Amino acid sequence: MTENSSTSLATPTQNDSGHRGRPGYSREDVIRIAVAEFNAYGYEATSMGKLAQRLGLTKSAIYHHVSSKEEILVGATSRALELLTEALDEAGALAGDSRERLKAAIVGATRVLCTYPDEVTLLLRLRGNTDVEEELMERRRGITRDFVAFVRDAQEDGVVRDDLDAGLAGRLTLGTVNSLTEWYRVDGELGPEELSGAVASLIMKGLLSRA
Amino acid sequence: MTENSSTSLATPTQNDSGHRGRPGYSREDVIRIAVAEFNAYGYEATSMGKLAQRLGLTKSAIYHHVSSKEEILVGATSRALELLTEALDEAGALAGDSRERLKAAIVGATRVLCTYPDEVTLLLRLRGNTDVEEELMERRRGITRDFVAFVRDAQEDGVVRDDLDAGLAGRLTLGTVNSLTEWYRVDGELGPEELSGAVASLIMKGLLSRA
Repeated sequence: MTENSSTSLATPTQNDSGHRGRPGYSREDVIRIAVAEFNAYGYEATSMGKLAQRLGLTKSAIYHHVSSKEEILVGATSRALELLTEALDEAGALAGDSRERLKAAIVGATRVLCTYPDEVTLLLRLRGNTDVEEELMERRRGITRDFVAFVRDAQEDGVVRDDLDAGLAGRLTLGTVNSLTEWYRVDGELGPEELSGAVASLIMKGLLSRA
Repeated sequence: MTENSSTSLATPTQNDSGHRGRPGYSREDVIRIAVAEFNAYGYEATSMGKLAQRLGLTKSAIYHHVSSKEEILVGATSRALELLTEALDEAGALAGDSRERLKAAIVGATRVLCTYPDEVTLLLRLRGNTDVEEELMERRRGITRDFVAFVRDAQEDGVVRDDLDAGLAGRLTLGTVNSLTEWYRVDGELGPEELSGAVASLIMKGLLSRA
């Protein structure tokens, strides 16, 4: 992209759609495409220069949209984390049986994953090599703790089996949800409804109290 | 590491233990440490130069042990794939109930994961950016197909529920096993026996036929 490196933020080029920058990406577009690149080649291996190249932007033009790779990472994974937290808060606020709250947590988390599969995948592949990544991983651990708490509450109410440690059962439950990132495709045969129903049914039956 | 770049394979340095190379790694050591690096920073982001630096070897000395990054990848993941295939073959050869074969497959795969967690993690993070990666991913897909077949057989025998599609139930089963890579530690509280028992118990109960 060296042939374009003289283009500066102060003198943006015009494209067909008349937007600043070239070829006229929104900040959302840049983040979305960057997340796909991170997932395809690894966060560490993807430089801002490579992202610019992938977008057909100059390296200086990409900074018009985002100030750093970390800003993209935080922007993308925070959205997933916020939705997950919201889904779990909603599940926790349900009246009635603690088994229903656990089930709602599974369904809610699966739906978020199906809505933002790339962002959740990125979140799951974080390695904690920077402070920002470590911070995001801590928020991710919070989601795990929530799942463990849902299982523990249901165990204490005697509505799910207690021969499995709550920490283990909670991790396996969230792990089963997260494993969807391995093969889920937005345009695939199975949608959020079928998948959230299937995961909830498999796990809830697996956790059913013998009582 | 440029200060050592004149060391050639033809004139290996001697270390305290008298081995060729420095500081006296075996090929196994090099692969093991490389896999940890791949998992920590990403396969794409880890060059042979970086690996050499991590090992305290010159870039030319590392080629004494392995000819390429891909050779390390294939060596490490093939071992995990072979053991997984072996475990599934053994499960498939069990006489009796097809439910027992499915359970044995879950237990076997979990044990392999607990024995080679880093190698299985690397296998799960492959992205298929090279032909070699694509080949390994195809072998990995073979493991998935085996799991789906175990579920389908048990469904056909009427011993596990058939309201979940076999392809989906098989993927969720293997996904639950694989999710252990997210948090399993060889020196952790829970060992292969507890974990394989817990995953098998959760999933088998979840898949239990209503009959």
